[in-house]
Amino acid sequence: MKSILSRQDCLAQDATDPLGSCRARFHLPTGLIYLDGNSLGVLPRATPGRLAEVVEREWGEGLIGSWNSAVPGSSVGAGWVEAPLRVGERLAPLLGAAPGQVAVADSTSVNLYKLLAMALALRPERRVIVSEADNFPTDLYIAQGLIAQLGGRHELRLLPAGASVADYVAALDAEVAVLMLSHVSYRSGAMHEIRALSAAAHAAGALTLWDLAHSAGAVPLALDADGADFAVGCGYKYLNGGPGAPAFLYIAARWQGRVASPLSGWFGHAQPFAFEPDYRPAPDIAQALCGTPPILGLSALEVGIKQFEGVDIQQLRAKSLALSELCIGLVESRLAGQGFVLASPREAARRGSQVCWQHFAAWPICQALIARGVVGDFRAPDILRFGFAPLYLRHVDVWDAVEQLTQVMAAEEWRQERFQTRGKVT
Amino acid sequence: MKSILSRQDCLAQDATDPLGSCRARFHLPTGLIYLDGNSLGVLPRATPGRLAEVVEREWGEGLIGSWNSAVPGSSVGAGWVEAPLRVGERLAPLLGAAPGQVAVADSTSVNLYKLLAMALALRPERRVIVSEADNFPTDLYIAQGLIAQLGGRHELRLLPAGASVADYVAALDAEVAVLMLSHVSYRSGAMHEIRALSAAAHAAGALTLWDLAHSAGAVPLALDADGADFAVGCGYKYLNGGPGAPAFLYIAARWQGRVASPLSGWFGHAQPFAFEPDYRPAPDIAQALCGTPPILGLSALEVGIKQFEGVDIQQLRAKSLALSELCIGLVESRLAGQGFVLASPREAARRGSQVCWQHFAAWPICQALIARGVVGDFRAPDILRFGFAPLYLRHVDVWDAVEQLTQVMAAEEWRQERFQTRGKVT
Repeated sequence: MKSILSRQDCLAQDATDPLGSCRARFHLPTGLIYLDGNSLGVLPRATPGRLAEVVEREWGEGLIGSWNSAVPGSSVGAGWVEAPLRVGERLAPLLGAAPGQVAVADSTSVNLYKLLAMALALRPERRVIVSEADNFPTDLYIAQGLIAQLGGRHELRLLPAGASVADYVAALDAEVAVLMLSHVSYRSGAMHEIRALSAAAHAAGALTLWDLAHSAGAVPLALDADGADFAVGCGYKYLNGGPGAPAFLYIAARWQGRVASPLSGWFGHAQPFAFEPDYRPAPDIAQALCGTPPILGLSALEVGIKQFEGVDIQQLRAKSLALSELCIGLVESRLAGQGFVLASPREAARRGSQVCWQHFAAWPICQALIARGVVGDFRAPDILRFGFAPLYLRHVDVWDAVEQLTQVMAAEEWRQERFQTRGKVT
Repeated sequence: MKSILSRQDCLAQDATDPLGSCRARFHLPTGLIYLDGNSLGVLPRATPGRLAEVVEREWGEGLIGSWNSAVPGSSVGAGWVEAPLRVGERLAPLLGAAPGQVAVADSTSVNLYKLLAMALALRPERRVIVSEADNFPTDLYIAQGLIAQLGGRHELRLLPAGASVADYVAALDAEVAVLMLSHVSYRSGAMHEIRALSAAAHAAGALTLWDLAHSAGAVPLALDADGADFAVGCGYKYLNGGPGAPAFLYIAARWQGRVASPLSGWFGHAQPFAFEPDYRPAPDIAQALCGTPPILGLSALEVGIKQFEGVDIQQLRAKSLALSELCIGLVESRLAGQGFVLASPREAARRGSQVCWQHFAAWPICQALIARGVVGDFRAPDILRFGFAPLYLRHVDVWDAVEQLTQVMAAEEWRQERFQTRGKVT
């Protein structure tokens, strides 16, 4: 770790940051240090204007005609019908996906259900889904619900958090249909190796399904090159698509058209507007769509994804790691002996874009920090989580956040009664 | 039918219309007569301002804290987490549903999948879904997908359009698990009797699942009193929630907690933020939620539903029928012998809020009307569909629309080559 220990050093780093100009693309509330962009990303400055245009011009004036393909240079059609695949294509480079494999639709949970069902249908003779006990709960819930829906013949085999590739190799026996993992852990920030685990899964005859909620927009992804089969992810974290933004899904080209989505709604039909009596899946990635696309959410997400245009994802990763290392270094030097135990991998290559600290008073400390304008997140039972969205965070923000933390601890501010009550829901 | 035959008579009707003032709540493009509010409802004037507030203040400034419950009179919390049930409760009176039975979530297709799966699980020994061949395609597609997922043991038994209650009674044998129907046909506007068919289904030991896409906000509904078991519907038609607005679902209190939704995402969990390892459905209607709620869409839909506040639904129905009867009377008198055959029930009680005409040239006639600023809709193969959204349409709009139709036919305008091409997708 570099030994940047003064605020001045941080300001100097920011002055030469090649991504420094990106911050101006976003609205950041005055006086707030926001280390929760991995829960809800901030508002791009371009979003309100684009949404006003969608609402007032496309909906208000264009009405039903806005579903039609847009005629370039004309006010005819807004291309709403193409939005799920158009926004998917815009996102694909961030996922390392060649065209034709990404769509935006529904929620992460719903997309996970679709793709897990499809993956299981591709391995009908196998009965096991391997995942991680510390996976984000909705992923496990969705698997449980699907297993029940399929008659209870499948089993969810959970490995502990921190299991190694070798542990997974050992768990991937001939019964395993799907390896379903979050790429980056929401709780610890630990990052799995997509390439190694996909290879291990394939060697065992299984398929992989990745939840990229905590990686897309923050860590380089190479789904195609790494051999991923299926993936889903979230639009409202690092992609800055807004609260409850639609989610995305990836189906490797080789699996498209092999099995149909169980959620066989009309937008997944080969000809949705032919109103045929029988379902006939689209031949392309549209086969994973279901109902009418949520145009307001899709439009906001499209603006969020556009903010990555021209951004070198390796530079993004370098900055994410610089911010994370800075946080680790500052906390461990300035708050030594105060009970903060690093709960994220120390090795940069095994960490996403967040740094988590285990502390017995994580809840009230988190609340005391929020009261001082530093928004981190608490994850039960005792994790203080700092997310570093490299597009808009500065080194000096990390320095200031740790300074506030130092003051919270020095004054034992977290002991105040007002910070003890559990009310926050997210 | 009243014999209103002059434009002046229509203006007089509008002058005394008790719902006349509601029109000012909506933005209607200049020079357009919009008879397609049953495909995409118009923009409420309050929507852009409310969305700007949600985006700029709640998201932009409040960020993650906006998920928390709103503190009345304060800027703390925006209550996003409660939006699916809050908007559901706001909608419930329009559905004739007592509190605690309606939620807003996902798309109509996804909600139909959840509730159909739940209904089938409540009748595990039965194997038949009864529906209508002319049901909206996505409803049939969803049933087909679910049947395939459940191993093909179920059967979709389709009655022809126009089948009577007696026909349904005959079809409802001891094998039938669910009667799944659209209340109002998207194609003809024919309306089923929820009370009679629910009674018939229950007498046969089956459950009912209603798609209210073409009724909510236009026809009086009494789900509780009529004995409906499950229902879904659309937010972007008569409810004016915007393109791809989230959909709604209704589960009668007596069925809640009996079976879990197959889409067991975290927002359907009893304690979504406790991050428990196992799914445990919420005890209330939240059990039908799945992923993170789409806040932009929910906020726009809430504004749409608010436009019904203070509106007497019986007055709404009376006006809807007055507009429909006016259309029928005018077309049949002014366009007699021009090939327009009424494709909607002539009996008002059996019709929703639309009037459909069969005509061999329905497609080019629809296009020629659009070119003249009268937006109706075409439904394959030969249906010209006029929807009457009674909150914002006037009698004079119907008169003017028919006048334009008269001119299209008199000049044989629809024969022009530019109106022949099939390009419109919705």
